[in-house]
Amino acid sequence: MSAAHGGFITLEGSEGVGKTTNMTFVCDYLAAQGLEVVRTREPGGAPRAESIRALLLDPSNDEPLDDCAELLLVFAARAQHLSQVVRPAMARGAIVVCDRFTDATYAYQGAARGMPSAWIDQLRGLVHPALTPDITFLLDMPVADAANRVAARGGQTDRFEQERAAFFEQVRQGYLSLAAQEPGRVKVIDAARSLKAIEQDIMTHLDRLIPSWT
Amino acid sequence: MSAAHGGFITLEGSEGVGKTTNMTFVCDYLAAQGLEVVRTREPGGAPRAESIRALLLDPSNDEPLDDCAELLLVFAARAQHLSQVVRPAMARGAIVVCDRFTDATYAYQGAARGMPSAWIDQLRGLVHPALTPDITFLLDMPVADAANRVAARGGQTDRFEQERAAFFEQVRQGYLSLAAQEPGRVKVIDAARSLKAIEQDIMTHLDRLIPSWT
Repeated sequence: MSAAHGGFITLEGSEGVGKTTNMTFVCDYLAAQGLEVVRTREPGGAPRAESIRALLLDPSNDEPLDDCAELLLVFAARAQHLSQVVRPAMARGAIVVCDRFTDATYAYQGAARGMPSAWIDQLRGLVHPALTPDITFLLDMPVADAANRVAARGGQTDRFEQERAAFFEQVRQGYLSLAAQEPGRVKVIDAARSLKAIEQDIMTHLDRLIPSWT
Repeated sequence: MSAAHGGFITLEGSEGVGKTTNMTFVCDYLAAQGLEVVRTREPGGAPRAESIRALLLDPSNDEPLDDCAELLLVFAARAQHLSQVVRPAMARGAIVVCDRFTDATYAYQGAARGMPSAWIDQLRGLVHPALTPDITFLLDMPVADAANRVAARGGQTDRFEQERAAFFEQVRQGYLSLAAQEPGRVKVIDAARSLKAIEQDIMTHLDRLIPSWT
């Protein structure tokens, strides 16, 4: 992608794999090269999209959220985030670093919730027919290890964090299957290793892309 | 539709055409025949769908709501409402009377906002491929007359009510075009007449359908 169109990097993975820490590393590394970096997240990333996120994560269980409604809310938040944040940033040449994007929809709403991937294809076709991340870092580790890290954090759990191990195993397998389909874009990072080893992997991939952004 | 599957009646029309008053008439008339009536509305009608409605109507203008996000929110609310309210009620044989449904999406998000009707067709195919109202009453009157009624109500206006006359003219024409395409289902009711005349029209149509529900 030419510099005039900015860059788009996504980090993916289940709860507890270290996305936040590695987001910071990616953003700092790119900023140190003099690039304008926009750090954001999905669902959310813009005020009205964050309101949709709140509905998606609301753990109150007086009324279950329909799976199809969940899928549509995810894409509604995405349309808002793209129009308000991602597209304007890329248009001015910035590098957008986003915590989760459409791969997460295939993993969570598709592989784990069972929504047909053809539906997700259709919605992706409406919301972002021509936008794909330049690179996606899939932080991967065994589900039990990630769950231990989430538990160690403490605090209240959201509607997704309350799911059981089988759900997160399906999320993980969904993600790994996307990586197998698109190995050129989706880089599987073994997140059970030391932070130093993970950062070294990420740097190697970024160093290959940076010349196309500067 | 057989009695075991209940009935589904929708009322459509722009702001100010008298939907609320006529909703009450329809519900009372059916209840007087001994039918179980479930009165509901879209967007909304179930707790989580009402939360989505609040996002859709929020008039704060610090961030515009993207048109595609709006369309997806409408269908997310619809999926939730169908799963929580409409389908369970119809399954037990009740008659659901709903203030607005997918025709409104074609009129507001399609004809007025300019979202392609092919997109709305696709979303309808995901959310309710097999459900169409048994009858739809389209309350129709000139846009200026409806606007005067809304103004006479006073109070705060929502994000849609703040639109201009040209928007509501497109809504009206969108609705009339649906009625032209499906005259068997969509009954245009001249809502500029006396309440008595309107009720007489509605009764005539309902009397034809009631035998199939009892």
